[in-house]
Amino acid sequence: MATPKTPDEHSVGYVEPKSVRFDHKLELARAETSLPHYELVYETYGTLNEQRNNAILICHALSGDHHAAGIHRDTGTVGWWDNCIGPGKPIDTDRFYVLSLNNLGGCSGSTGPTSINPDTNQPYGGDFPTVTVPDWVNTQKELADHLGIERFAAVVGGSLGGMQAMQWAIDYPERVANALLIASAPKLSAQNIGFNEIARSAIERDPDFIAGETPKTGLALARMIGHVTYLSEVGMAGKFGRKFQENQAQSTKEPMFAVQSYLRYQGNKFVDRFDPHTYILMTKSLDYFDPAEAYGGDLVETFRRATARFLVVSFTSDWRFSPQRSAEIVDALISAGCSVSSAVVESADGHDSFLLDSPRYFEILRNYLTNVADNL
Amino acid sequence: MATPKTPDEHSVGYVEPKSVRFDHKLELARAETSLPHYELVYETYGTLNEQRNNAILICHALSGDHHAAGIHRDTGTVGWWDNCIGPGKPIDTDRFYVLSLNNLGGCSGSTGPTSINPDTNQPYGGDFPTVTVPDWVNTQKELADHLGIERFAAVVGGSLGGMQAMQWAIDYPERVANALLIASAPKLSAQNIGFNEIARSAIERDPDFIAGETPKTGLALARMIGHVTYLSEVGMAGKFGRKFQENQAQSTKEPMFAVQSYLRYQGNKFVDRFDPHTYILMTKSLDYFDPAEAYGGDLVETFRRATARFLVVSFTSDWRFSPQRSAEIVDALISAGCSVSSAVVESADGHDSFLLDSPRYFEILRNYLTNVADNL
Repeated sequence: MATPKTPDEHSVGYVEPKSVRFDHKLELARAETSLPHYELVYETYGTLNEQRNNAILICHALSGDHHAAGIHRDTGTVGWWDNCIGPGKPIDTDRFYVLSLNNLGGCSGSTGPTSINPDTNQPYGGDFPTVTVPDWVNTQKELADHLGIERFAAVVGGSLGGMQAMQWAIDYPERVANALLIASAPKLSAQNIGFNEIARSAIERDPDFIAGETPKTGLALARMIGHVTYLSEVGMAGKFGRKFQENQAQSTKEPMFAVQSYLRYQGNKFVDRFDPHTYILMTKSLDYFDPAEAYGGDLVETFRRATARFLVVSFTSDWRFSPQRSAEIVDALISAGCSVSSAVVESADGHDSFLLDSPRYFEILRNYLTNVADNL
Repeated sequence: MATPKTPDEHSVGYVEPKSVRFDHKLELARAETSLPHYELVYETYGTLNEQRNNAILICHALSGDHHAAGIHRDTGTVGWWDNCIGPGKPIDTDRFYVLSLNNLGGCSGSTGPTSINPDTNQPYGGDFPTVTVPDWVNTQKELADHLGIERFAAVVGGSLGGMQAMQWAIDYPERVANALLIASAPKLSAQNIGFNEIARSAIERDPDFIAGETPKTGLALARMIGHVTYLSEVGMAGKFGRKFQENQAQSTKEPMFAVQSYLRYQGNKFVDRFDPHTYILMTKSLDYFDPAEAYGGDLVETFRRATARFLVVSFTSDWRFSPQRSAEIVDALISAGCSVSSAVVESADGHDSFLLDSPRYFEILRNYLTNVADNL
């Protein structure tokens, strides 16, 4: 990204994370355990209006966090969706109050595997309970209560984030006016689970992980596996093709393809910023996601509870959560009598497309949300 | 496979591997080194006719070996393509003399990383030179010379095996009457290379591998990655879906999906039978394969040398080497004025389809080769 490290007129500017602690027990949906209390880290952009009805919740994906927009003054880090959130941007902070949090179980400040387990005074690590999408929605609802947001104008997410938006519309229909599900799926396929299983195995079988140290190899491999599945074959062909990496070390016996070098770099970079237990937790949350399970496996029946209006967006080259998976959502929403708009956007960037600026995609988000704002 | 462990009437019966040692220096195409001598292990099925023109060469893929058909009496092991090779089978040993070998660099008896390096009196291991498809073709030609086969009725291979058949038709046009390229590609895509790179990284970064021991974790991960890419999304959905594994250990805290359990099993099973250095070598050979490189990158120009008739088969659900990749081969062959028949076979079994019995696929092989036999 070429985003400058100082805010321009379309940036929400310098931002600082906030934090809130909930001092009551949290029962978890799948784990047979609870958390005695928990903390959530979040950021907000824009201003909550007097009617308190212009809030948008951003739900992050597997490796995301609360820092979705603006710049952290101390590190210069730009938010992961800064191209989409800001004054005049598709998620327009001149009109909306945008809330973004680090999910429970994350590793960016919210209570998770790196937090201290009050029972042992040691970090939870692998003892942190399995957290699933319904748990995230419950804790996000607590955060909304804390901020005095009775009803979101929209809950928005891509990938695993879209699953949270979907669950919101099912579990708290009265609190979501619009649900924007981008590059998502109603549940994972066996192939999806297979890739997650390999990533988890890479971490769990790393001897450093077993010894309680940072599994540099396992985390890097997990990220490399993820990365290949986020890109498309045609996108990789355009970006790398069969080009060899330039400026290779003299010691290298054999030429290395640019794509090899790129994947190694992405893998190693990830080790510094992500917690292995959180990675395992997030992939399990993906695997277990299946909102229809509580309704006899019937997705149409599931969506009958929803009252939100839906926007479902997918991308042609996304083979991780293909347009076909979004079509399953759309079909079920139509059958359930929900209001749903949908678009399949032409893109060569695979699953990553949901994070990238492309004209039709951003026009759709912008125009949909402009109508939401106009009708508040 | 439900193949019985004792031969039936359509089996080539009990078979024994043979071996030949070539006592001259072998220059390798890509490595700046040579082998002082080398050994190849092979099997033959059927009888070489008087005119010596009914030989078919079978080229194996990444994890294959010389044992393509029949049964090893001592272990009961059935050949990897026994469903296709035998009396009355598509590759009919009543009519053809079938030759199958373990490629140079393999780990099933031919000279490779597990062989003794004469310079050190230790196994070669990582010092074994990089071997590429043209090297295999050269060594297969030496084996043909040894067996008195001047010209193959057909060279047949799936996946990496198809690449060898392609290279044969380019490098030794006068010695190949027919080249059967199944589920193959003219060169790997960046995505293909990406998956191979992750598999290699899993092995190379395994501390046991670095310490010179068997990288159980790395090899298992490599196999798991390979396996997911050999299957199709729809095939995995049919085979596993989101079913949970039955009979889970009491100690397991959480339910495990059947697909997880399957991948773990496949990964661990592979460790016992395959050498990590050979795995690295085979994937590099795949990555570097690019027969057009020697002809200015022009595949049409490359194929102008070929005089064989071609059969090109691909499978609808194969996303590792998709029908699109086979179409590239077919298009270039047509442009080069070669005789090419081709078929895209409907299948849900992904890249693995080339190993499996499906009616249209086997009919095409059978009928094509019947015509070859009738016209010898």
